[in-house]
Amino acid sequence: MNMTGALLIGARNVFRETRFHAVAAEDGAPLPVAFSCAEARDVRAACALADDAFDSFRATAPDARAAFLDRTASGIEAQGKELIARAMAETGLPHARLAGECNRTMGQLRLFARALRQGRCFDVRIDPALPDRTPLPRPDLRMIRVGVGPVAVFGASNFPFAFSVAGGDTASALAAGCPVVARAHPAHPGVSELMGHIVRDAVAASGLPEGVFSLLGGPSHEIGAALVRDPAIMAVGFTGSRAGGLALAAMAAARPVPIPFYGELSAINPVYLLPDALEARAETLGKDFIASLTREAGQFCTNPGLILAVEGPALDRFRAAARAALEDSAAQTMLTGGIHEAYESGVAALAERPGVTCLGRGAPGGPRACQAALFETSAAAFMAGPALGQEIFGATSLLVACPDSATMQALTAGLEGQLTATLHMAPTDLPLARSLMPMLERKAGRILANGWPTGVELCDAMVHGGPFPATTDPRTTSVGTAAIERFLRPVCYQDIPETLLPDGLKHSNPFSLPRGLDGAY
Amino acid sequence: MNMTGALLIGARNVFRETRFHAVAAEDGAPLPVAFSCAEARDVRAACALADDAFDSFRATAPDARAAFLDRTASGIEAQGKELIARAMAETGLPHARLAGECNRTMGQLRLFARALRQGRCFDVRIDPALPDRTPLPRPDLRMIRVGVGPVAVFGASNFPFAFSVAGGDTASALAAGCPVVARAHPAHPGVSELMGHIVRDAVAASGLPEGVFSLLGGPSHEIGAALVRDPAIMAVGFTGSRAGGLALAAMAAARPVPIPFYGELSAINPVYLLPDALEARAETLGKDFIASLTREAGQFCTNPGLILAVEGPALDRFRAAARAALEDSAAQTMLTGGIHEAYESGVAALAERPGVTCLGRGAPGGPRACQAALFETSAAAFMAGPALGQEIFGATSLLVACPDSATMQALTAGLEGQLTATLHMAPTDLPLARSLMPMLERKAGRILANGWPTGVELCDAMVHGGPFPATTDPRTTSVGTAAIERFLRPVCYQDIPETLLPDGLKHSNPFSLPRGLDGAY
Repeated sequence: MNMTGALLIGARNVFRETRFHAVAAEDGAPLPVAFSCAEARDVRAACALADDAFDSFRATAPDARAAFLDRTASGIEAQGKELIARAMAETGLPHARLAGECNRTMGQLRLFARALRQGRCFDVRIDPALPDRTPLPRPDLRMIRVGVGPVAVFGASNFPFAFSVAGGDTASALAAGCPVVARAHPAHPGVSELMGHIVRDAVAASGLPEGVFSLLGGPSHEIGAALVRDPAIMAVGFTGSRAGGLALAAMAAARPVPIPFYGELSAINPVYLLPDALEARAETLGKDFIASLTREAGQFCTNPGLILAVEGPALDRFRAAARAALEDSAAQTMLTGGIHEAYESGVAALAERPGVTCLGRGAPGGPRACQAALFETSAAAFMAGPALGQEIFGATSLLVACPDSATMQALTAGLEGQLTATLHMAPTDLPLARSLMPMLERKAGRILANGWPTGVELCDAMVHGGPFPATTDPRTTSVGTAAIERFLRPVCYQDIPETLLPDGLKHSNPFSLPRGLDGAY
Repeated sequence: MNMTGALLIGARNVFRETRFHAVAAEDGAPLPVAFSCAEARDVRAACALADDAFDSFRATAPDARAAFLDRTASGIEAQGKELIARAMAETGLPHARLAGECNRTMGQLRLFARALRQGRCFDVRIDPALPDRTPLPRPDLRMIRVGVGPVAVFGASNFPFAFSVAGGDTASALAAGCPVVARAHPAHPGVSELMGHIVRDAVAASGLPEGVFSLLGGPSHEIGAALVRDPAIMAVGFTGSRAGGLALAAMAAARPVPIPFYGELSAINPVYLLPDALEARAETLGKDFIASLTREAGQFCTNPGLILAVEGPALDRFRAAARAALEDSAAQTMLTGGIHEAYESGVAALAERPGVTCLGRGAPGGPRACQAALFETSAAAFMAGPALGQEIFGATSLLVACPDSATMQALTAGLEGQLTATLHMAPTDLPLARSLMPMLERKAGRILANGWPTGVELCDAMVHGGPFPATTDPRTTSVGTAAIERFLRPVCYQDIPETLLPDGLKHSNPFSLPRGLDGAY
């Protein structure tokens, strides 16, 4: 597979005169292939094709969509080497990480294939007619979840595979029967196009209509805006900056027909070092914290950006261990020059805030490398305003030393919504942990004990989501099988003749879907 | 139980100097009791109590919440006579309808009690730890759906029981473990207070914290606005006018922390008379249509406001039958003077639109009675702009005579989202029905054959919802057990010790909830 620089509009390669170059994360040097910049007409064409494809795509058997997802996963598997090489150049992420992410992306596609074959996600409910009921007979009522319509998926800069062109949102939307118009992240146009060809080939090999998938690229914000505003688009999946996400969310809400916008925007993922755990293992915690913080330049939405602990000698030991580990941490190239600049200016601004001191910095590196940083402030300073609770994307974190555990509680009550909250605790910390739990359940989508938040398992029980601004819609997750719910809506059929019912609701149950009959399963 | 004119703020009766009177729907004469108008401090107090109650309320056993809902239903049952008498005076609705609605309201509470005892709504998923997995062990991961937080419920004018203080939204929010702050509809403050006392008594009898339920009344829009903006409120259920709903939805989206807004706003519920069905039973269809249209002055969100048919002799027979039935239809008092005025001016404006002719009017009645109306227009006139597709609340409908079935298709493609779409068809109409189905599935939450949309069954498979503007969130329903999903969000627990897990996730499964284990049930 070669990179061509094309937009992939259904089955067509479309080239535009205005081009942009991918650049190496390392030094900003241009990488091969000049990529076409999508224009308004391209957005419209892709969305119109998606709309045309929707009715037949959503009517396909769950098995057929599962085979399509499996085929996409196999396509990625077959080209893993080339994909990873290009992703390394475009993102600066190390090989092992990208290989793991590539596996994860295949895993996501296969997880939704499994969910489709199981069929529970369609939530079929049948309340049969009761012709003899008095005073009025009951009609036959059948419900199934159907796709919401074409979905716009915005690739994220920090996961060129798992949250991009064929990433989680694409997998769950396609599983739901929704065509996808993907907006390639301009920081990795090459890997986006390679992935796009894989999905498109799977569309063709599966005999699906071409409009099931399109890929649009270019650096302009206008492309994303046009996509969110296009009347054919019925939902949006987005992972990115708070400012960018809020702007797109406002557009989605201001449309003549508002649509669901699933944005993952911002989190600092508080980590609580409860007193007895800190006492027992301050050094290990300090070291493991820095490992989690600095992994791949801290470019994770689940990065531990806030550490809470009660002041005392054990915290001193943690500080010392963290500082030592930090000084040993290698500087890792950041994803883009812009992200690196934002990191540097965020860290510089934090360092100058009153009441904030720098506990240490990691080793410096190349011009676009992330020099890790650890700051400290008092609980009073943290609670004085929202500024210290803002995410700085990258390997920086803020330790808040609390005078007592009551202050830790009070500070927690004022936090914004989070993707995760983590408790490090010893058995004797249980009473304090118990008192924190209700607040953490309100604030976070996932609560962990004695781990670090940066690993997100791929499974049925995962929730990668959370209250605003962690996400714009805390009712859903973007990872795990429950993510398919984002792109489904229920439809009820009343006394509809067998031949007109969708196959998922027919008496003969051709898809062998699990069904609730009068509420029983 | 006496009406006191109080606001019910938790367990307290709060009286305010500024009062308003309920008025008789019939003639606008004041009814007994002057009701307190809620002030900003009352909204805040009710919301703060709800927030205080949330953590302990959501932690109650599903069985305990089911008992609470059953107790509320029994309270309604015990006072049915008084409730119905007051509702008749305030709404002008007939006894039989209100008695049926009262039963339905008890049925809703009991349906959610049943759903809680079944426990499927919590969607418990457990992916146990895999300590020996390579390269990395898997932690123990458990997911459960928890309440989103305190919910604001806006009572609807047209269902003083089923969509009001203890109606569907309240039942599903309480089932989800969310405290409710109800905003009484000012058109039926007396029945609202009576219902409020029943819920409050059930709260107390169930040993729940007082903040689980509050009731605020008054005619000012400021009360609703303050409620939607209150930081403790985490979701809103609303049934009412398009303009009012959109204004509140915009406030919900503009909060520092935006929240889900479930508004049911507007629908004209297209009914298709397919050619062979029309040929076979034009007279019956005409008569049944008018019965559905004029029932209780047409004050239903599922009222058949648009009839589509192909021009021809059979349609003439339908017209004649409908006109005859219309002339025989009694005028029924409307809910309020304001609603009657809006109906009259809506009908007058429609009558004056170019291309619209009046096919007939029902009998006139008292000063606030709804004189039914049937208009006709051409498909071309209907498709020329959005004006003819707007809902007029009351017993009026618009027949669109299409030159052919292709035109019927084209018109359908331009319709807004709807709560329902209805096909009247003979077996020989199946090919045409089949060609309409994909579009109807996109446009409506419920599709019926050979019935009328005004009856909404209470069951698992029901969807009372639909694409915008039928509702502001087509992913949900407000009737049926799936409605509980509006007020739940998933939370994942990773390696959390047994004693800190919510009871619904404990190894011992004290609530006996159905669980998915590694994806299997």
